[in-house]
Amino acid sequence: MIIHSFTNDYSEGCHPSILQALNQSNLVQQTGYGDDIYTLNAVEAIKSKIGDNSVDVHLISGGTLTNLLVLASILKPFESVIAAHTGHISTHETGAIEATGHKIEEVISPDGKLTCELIKPVLNKFPEYHTVKPRVVYISNSTEIGTVYTKQELTTLSNFCKENNLILFMDGARLPSALMAASNDLTLSDVACLTDVFYIGGTKSGALLGEAVVITNDTLKKDFKYHQKQRGAMMAKGRVLGIQFEQLFKDDLIFELANHANNLAAKITDAVKELGYSFLTESDSNQIFPILPNKVIDTLTLKYGFYVWEPVDADNSAIRMVTSWATPEEKVDMFIHDLKETCKLW
Amino acid sequence: MIIHSFTNDYSEGCHPSILQALNQSNLVQQTGYGDDIYTLNAVEAIKSKIGDNSVDVHLISGGTLTNLLVLASILKPFESVIAAHTGHISTHETGAIEATGHKIEEVISPDGKLTCELIKPVLNKFPEYHTVKPRVVYISNSTEIGTVYTKQELTTLSNFCKENNLILFMDGARLPSALMAASNDLTLSDVACLTDVFYIGGTKSGALLGEAVVITNDTLKKDFKYHQKQRGAMMAKGRVLGIQFEQLFKDDLIFELANHANNLAAKITDAVKELGYSFLTESDSNQIFPILPNKVIDTLTLKYGFYVWEPVDADNSAIRMVTSWATPEEKVDMFIHDLKETCKLW
Amino acid sequence: MIIHSFTNDYSEGCHPSILQALNQSNLVQQTGYGDDIYTLNAVEAIKSKIGDNSVDVHLISGGTLTNLLVLASILKPFESVIAAHTGHISTHETGAIEATGHKIEEVISPDGKLTCELIKPVLNKFPEYHTVKPRVVYISNSTEIGTVYTKQELTTLSNFCKENNLILFMDGARLPSALMAASNDLTLSDVACLTDVFYIGGTKSGALLGEAVVITNDTLKKDFKYHQKQRGAMMAKGRVLGIQFEQLFKDDLIFELANHANNLAAKITDAVKELGYSFLTESDSNQIFPILPNKVIDTLTLKYGFYVWEPVDADNSAIRMVTSWATPEEKVDMFIHDLKETCKLW
Amino acid sequence: MIIHSFTNDYSEGCHPSILQALNQSNLVQQTGYGDDIYTLNAVEAIKSKIGDNSVDVHLISGGTLTNLLVLASILKPFESVIAAHTGHISTHETGAIEATGHKIEEVISPDGKLTCELIKPVLNKFPEYHTVKPRVVYISNSTEIGTVYTKQELTTLSNFCKENNLILFMDGARLPSALMAASNDLTLSDVACLTDVFYIGGTKSGALLGEAVVITNDTLKKDFKYHQKQRGAMMAKGRVLGIQFEQLFKDDLIFELANHANNLAAKITDAVKELGYSFLTESDSNQIFPILPNKVIDTLTLKYGFYVWEPVDADNSAIRMVTSWATPEEKVDMFIHDLKETCKLW
Repeated sequence: MIIHSFTNDYSEGCHPSILQALNQSNLVQQTGYGDDIYTLNAVEAIKSKIGDNSVDVHLISGGTLTNLLVLASILKPFESVIAAHTGHISTHETGAIEATGHKIEEVISPDGKLTCELIKPVLNKFPEYHTVKPRVVYISNSTEIGTVYTKQELTTLSNFCKENNLILFMDGARLPSALMAASNDLTLSDVACLTDVFYIGGTKSGALLGEAVVITNDTLKKDFKYHQKQRGAMMAKGRVLGIQFEQLFKDDLIFELANHANNLAAKITDAVKELGYSFLTESDSNQIFPILPNKVIDTLTLKYGFYVWEPVDADNSAIRMVTSWATPEEKVDMFIHDLKETCKLW
Repeated sequence: MIIHSFTNDYSEGCHPSILQALNQSNLVQQTGYGDDIYTLNAVEAIKSKIGDNSVDVHLISGGTLTNLLVLASILKPFESVIAAHTGHISTHETGAIEATGHKIEEVISPDGKLTCELIKPVLNKFPEYHTVKPRVVYISNSTEIGTVYTKQELTTLSNFCKENNLILFMDGARLPSALMAASNDLTLSDVACLTDVFYIGGTKSGALLGEAVVITNDTLKKDFKYHQKQRGAMMAKGRVLGIQFEQLFKDDLIFELANHANNLAAKITDAVKELGYSFLTESDSNQIFPILPNKVIDTLTLKYGFYVWEPVDADNSAIRMVTSWATPEEKVDMFIHDLKETCKLW
Repeated sequence: MIIHSFTNDYSEGCHPSILQALNQSNLVQQTGYGDDIYTLNAVEAIKSKIGDNSVDVHLISGGTLTNLLVLASILKPFESVIAAHTGHISTHETGAIEATGHKIEEVISPDGKLTCELIKPVLNKFPEYHTVKPRVVYISNSTEIGTVYTKQELTTLSNFCKENNLILFMDGARLPSALMAASNDLTLSDVACLTDVFYIGGTKSGALLGEAVVITNDTLKKDFKYHQKQRGAMMAKGRVLGIQFEQLFKDDLIFELANHANNLAAKITDAVKELGYSFLTESDSNQIFPILPNKVIDTLTLKYGFYVWEPVDADNSAIRMVTSWATPEEKVDMFIHDLKETCKLW
Repeated sequence: MIIHSFTNDYSEGCHPSILQALNQSNLVQQTGYGDDIYTLNAVEAIKSKIGDNSVDVHLISGGTLTNLLVLASILKPFESVIAAHTGHISTHETGAIEATGHKIEEVISPDGKLTCELIKPVLNKFPEYHTVKPRVVYISNSTEIGTVYTKQELTTLSNFCKENNLILFMDGARLPSALMAASNDLTLSDVACLTDVFYIGGTKSGALLGEAVVITNDTLKKDFKYHQKQRGAMMAKGRVLGIQFEQLFKDDLIFELANHANNLAAKITDAVKELGYSFLTESDSNQIFPILPNKVIDTLTLKYGFYVWEPVDADNSAIRMVTSWATPEEKVDMFIHDLKETCKLW
């Protein structure tokens, strides 16, 4: 019997305050397609949190849809997007970006983050117009392997992009967790200032569904809704997204929930370290990758859900554990207890 | 002050039983991407209602996304889809189908329905391979102008498609309303037998969001989930769709709600007829298009929401009124009362 | 035995001066991809003929490739192109434009030409961003049914496009024939002034292959070669195109050849009129559509090649006859003689 | 003054026999779009050389167009093509494949060739339908860096593809050179047996333009001409391609010309080796990559054309030299003489 699943951060429904708001608003008639009062409120709340009223905010139903929509709205047919080889668009979107006609130029990045040094070689193309033209740099924060960008890193990257006429797009499916990571020194305003477009993930941060795209670069704002409708990314009942983000940005709920998730991940991290085990990546966000003996993994698998990520050597493997807004602390405590007990045996 | 909006059937939230189910299931951990128990239950319920366990059912977040996904999953690059000029894909999806690379061959249809006679001229192409090859016939039931297909009409069309190697795809965004229309003699099983793929709209039938695609043609089933993920149409929290369709198919709720909507539309229809006014289209589904004097329209506009669809002559226009699962009968009564009062004045 | 084919204007090879130039230049080493001296000379000759050194000229291998390349280079994903229902892109390019992701909005045009009145209804879209946004107006001159634009018509259309932020693109696969038509009052410079982009067909005007795209609108010039390479429209041996257009623009050869074709078509037209027969379209270019008794057609078919275009009534059909730079006058005389003889019989 | 350019194999026109055939056939009327007698003859000649009458042969104007056409005709939207990172489609086609909607999965290959070992890691995807599905393996022979496949290598790869339901597609832009390489033990029949589809490059083998696609896998044959027309890859005057391939396959001319090119490359190779210099890649086809001192390169650059491919260390660089059917032996002798003289100086 599985006691608890740490497989991902989308195993449960949503924060109760969202259900309550859905209930309260249920029969109020509203305009469709995102012109409802809840969406307007949510957009205002997000702008206010960013501290910039001039940004454009659009609420989209899911992450892959958001990625393909944003990129297809920016890129000309011959332009490419640069991404880490671990990037979600590179690996787990079934060619969604290519299906809109654009090449992803994948860069090997050990920690899942992009740097100027990693990007530079992709820019020197020869001969002219026989090769694609890089136009967007796609980064994830937190990354797909749990790492987060520092303000210094993002600033350097942002400057580099500006100097090279590159658009910087941050996939923020787990941005709330990144911004609440112990090592983080970025604010949401910083992210808005340093990128051209980014999104704040709702699905993995306490919503039933939804990602909030924030466009800060004026040249990318025009006609976005045409792209949105064309890609099937405009919900008839836009209120469903509006209500959720309105709640998530009330009293910083979304960040509180991310903090909860991060704290529980940290608790597991500490326990793993205490036991003398290491990690595949350095993460203080809500995804951690402990390296454990296969025998320990086999035993834990009987009671807990998680991915066996990749073998590290003949006897040890990295696993992926994810905490969320919904993870109960007692389940984490039970896991740590069982981990310690199991380790004693070997 | 607007008393009530008859502008569309997506102005409210969802049927309360769905909210209740979302509440009850909220913290139960489930697998993502549609492999949760609620989705499995919903799929079983839909198969059972159809009476055919061999069909494939997939839950998708919205209508345009469903249309582009289904068509892109069927068509080879050089193949086209035939649709009425009033078809949703022809008019109001911002070129979503063309964006996947395929031509829509639009056929003028006064009542929004397709017939063999209308389709035949599109099939005779010359010269070979200089023209697109029609492969899918797209129909909506009910149509975008409220009309519904009879069993005889759909059977004839279905046979014609089979004889001509054409796939028949029914956009069922408003299928529940069509199947509960007074003139309807089709069952859900009939629809499944007579089409190759169709969907049952949730968004306009009492759900917050969601369309249930049913694939009956075996050759279209393989690898559908690859297409689904690629187009951004696979929700991480698939449970959100599963819970809704599970509820909607419990005790035929979805059809009861459609019946409610149709009855209220019929009540307005009767009143309009009683007043001696005619209609742009013959509809016994939940969308009606009364033709009223512009002066009457102007007065009603002050208290009720609806679209002024198109001018009919200098003094009269057709309006579109839509009822839904959420329309209160007393608001319909008030509208009829106000309509009668207004007409008296002129 | 077929004496002569009037089926099209691409049944023969090319004007002998081109073969001679291919011979003379054959072993001269040149840079690839259109940077050769012959292409440079051809581009200069075309600019000089237009009388505007600021236009961009690109040589492309064929018409469909040119159409899809030009349109894909201009249109954003949600933008559409308006075309006559008879337009080549609407009918005989196997969905090439849609394959690049764009909707063609087809307008019924009896004479194959577009006018402001025909275009206007396509521009009034509602509601915003639920529909495609028209951006390009595609016209053919001469049209697919032989008609040509007057200076007045093209000027009015051009002004309308400018006022409505529409790009005017002329498919000039048979532009030389159009410009040499008896009723024509346009010069090549006029065409350049009145359109944003157009092309001068070589394939149907005496070349083995090749169309010369002329971009006059500055905003469309940038990065065109990226699009060209991406669509497979950049020949390694660009010299092959350069040599041909250099010859075709030497001493106005291309226009002389078009004049020859038009004169022979006119000779047939006169004979047909003399015999009392009418035409499907009014054409003084190199494509004519006489309406003849089916019995006459059947007899002529034994000795001459042409398309039976469409039945006009039970006893008569329109045929399409095309003359070219290579049509020998004696074959036209023979046809006229045989036509007269055949008509006598019935 | 440049004495001779070894920059590429498309600097000259075409073999004189082709010009002669163009002349002789020039005014013979023929059906368009590849249904002419010359194309039929060329197709027969190619089938006969292959020794298999059941293959389909299509003549296309250029390499990039052929690559995108063939791949787009095979791949479903979610399917990918595996290629070496040096593959032409990976690097120098401006994202042409992605523009048709498909991901290229690039594999690092030091010698430009693919092996089962290199491909295997790409096949193990997880989780299902979140990732693209590899469907085609794209190889070039000779490769973009001059190497050629042995019969053993191609057989092993072919078997692996069959076992894994992968289509093997060979880009044969320089296939004649590969088949005439000293180390080659493949025949054209072998290539046809071991691949599902391949092409024989004309542009780089003595033609003005043209690539001959050979489809051996029955499942890929249907409707190819629809794809061809849609991509703008069907020439109105198909005769231009037919005449050329008819000549190239008369008395094995195309292979004789490749032999000439290879022999001259070998002559340079021998001279470079004699001087004690090494090569970036082992090539016995018509592209060689000698590594020379930068000072030598600088001197040779004054008299000969070639690419400086990449720096090898601070003092030496690899250059790319290409010979062709048109390269005069005396120019090769002059180059060798000058190379030796230059080396003496340093």
